[in-house]
Amino acid sequence: MKILGIDPGLRTTGFGVIHKQGQKLTYIASGTIKTVEGSLPDRLKSILSGVSEIVSTYRPDCAAIEKVFVNVNPQSTLLLGQARGAAICALVSAELSVAEYTALQVKQGIVGHGRARKEQVQDMVQRLLMLSGTPSPDAADALGVAICHAHSGEALATLSTIAPELAKKGLRVKSGRLIG
Amino acid sequence: MKILGIDPGLRTTGFGVIHKQGQKLTYIASGTIKTVEGSLPDRLKSILSGVSEIVSTYRPDCAAIEKVFVNVNPQSTLLLGQARGAAICALVSAELSVAEYTALQVKQGIVGHGRARKEQVQDMVQRLLMLSGTPSPDAADALGVAICHAHSGEALATLSTIAPELAKKGLRVKSGRLIG
Repeated sequence: MKILGIDPGLRTTGFGVIHKQGQKLTYIASGTIKTVEGSLPDRLKSILSGVSEIVSTYRPDCAAIEKVFVNVNPQSTLLLGQARGAAICALVSAELSVAEYTALQVKQGIVGHGRARKEQVQDMVQRLLMLSGTPSPDAADALGVAICHAHSGEALATLSTIAPELAKKGLRVKSGRLIG
Repeated sequence: MKILGIDPGLRTTGFGVIHKQGQKLTYIASGTIKTVEGSLPDRLKSILSGVSEIVSTYRPDCAAIEKVFVNVNPQSTLLLGQARGAAICALVSAELSVAEYTALQVKQGIVGHGRARKEQVQDMVQRLLMLSGTPSPDAADALGVAICHAHSGEALATLSTIAPELAKKGLRVKSGRLIG
């Protein structure tokens, strides 16, 4: 099963795609979508089309997105909310289920405690996915959300909902693994 | 020129479509999109598909959306931001230009001062568009945004950008009117 993780932002949206087979996680891709300068509708459009392009390129089976930090500045909170709304719209438009995880859940799931620094998340993501280099903070957060979802029961539930589809192709799911 | 006005909200999104010909404004349609109960991604999906359906039904030439009030509760601000993001995504996906107006600008444009009550906006919208009944508050706000845009210079600018398209059809624009 392929999982797309998203770390939303108005300027930079991180994305990470991983493959889960049984307990084994494999890195597929990661990066960031930088929004164009310009009006808010233009920026939301570039998030929408950027995330849609990633979905059509990597064809994930499900998605997970970070629950954003509620900023002290209401105007920033509103902008971030709109950016996150655009990213979710791209996912639901592609009929993907979207799970949500807080930064705390991601840190706990990846590093083991909620007070982990950014570098610790980057380091653990690099180890867990056996990457040759350190991913950028935004990409690491997105990969972290995807890993968090892979470890949750919900990812397995997504797999069971697609089981009838797989059965048609002569495949079945056993302990979270695809069996031919 | 047809203008779609949107008053975004997580539970209820108001919409209003008007036709502007020279200085004359004509009512076409208005109403509200109620979001389904459920997860945030599901609710954003219903806003996205609801606004998209309105766009494909009424085929407006441009859109205008209310700049939302920054709530004192950060969590509400974040939710409202995401709902607004979804509505804007539906508009930009349809290649519509999206103008933004604050509630203050709408009230000043419709009633004449920024402290107008909701009922005054409803009443003035009813008079300006010669409606037989009072529109609901959400629909009135959406029609108000559309009227505000019709009165602004920007609506005329939108018309001039589509002028080359019209010329191909043997039409031209003079003083904001279409001439066959």
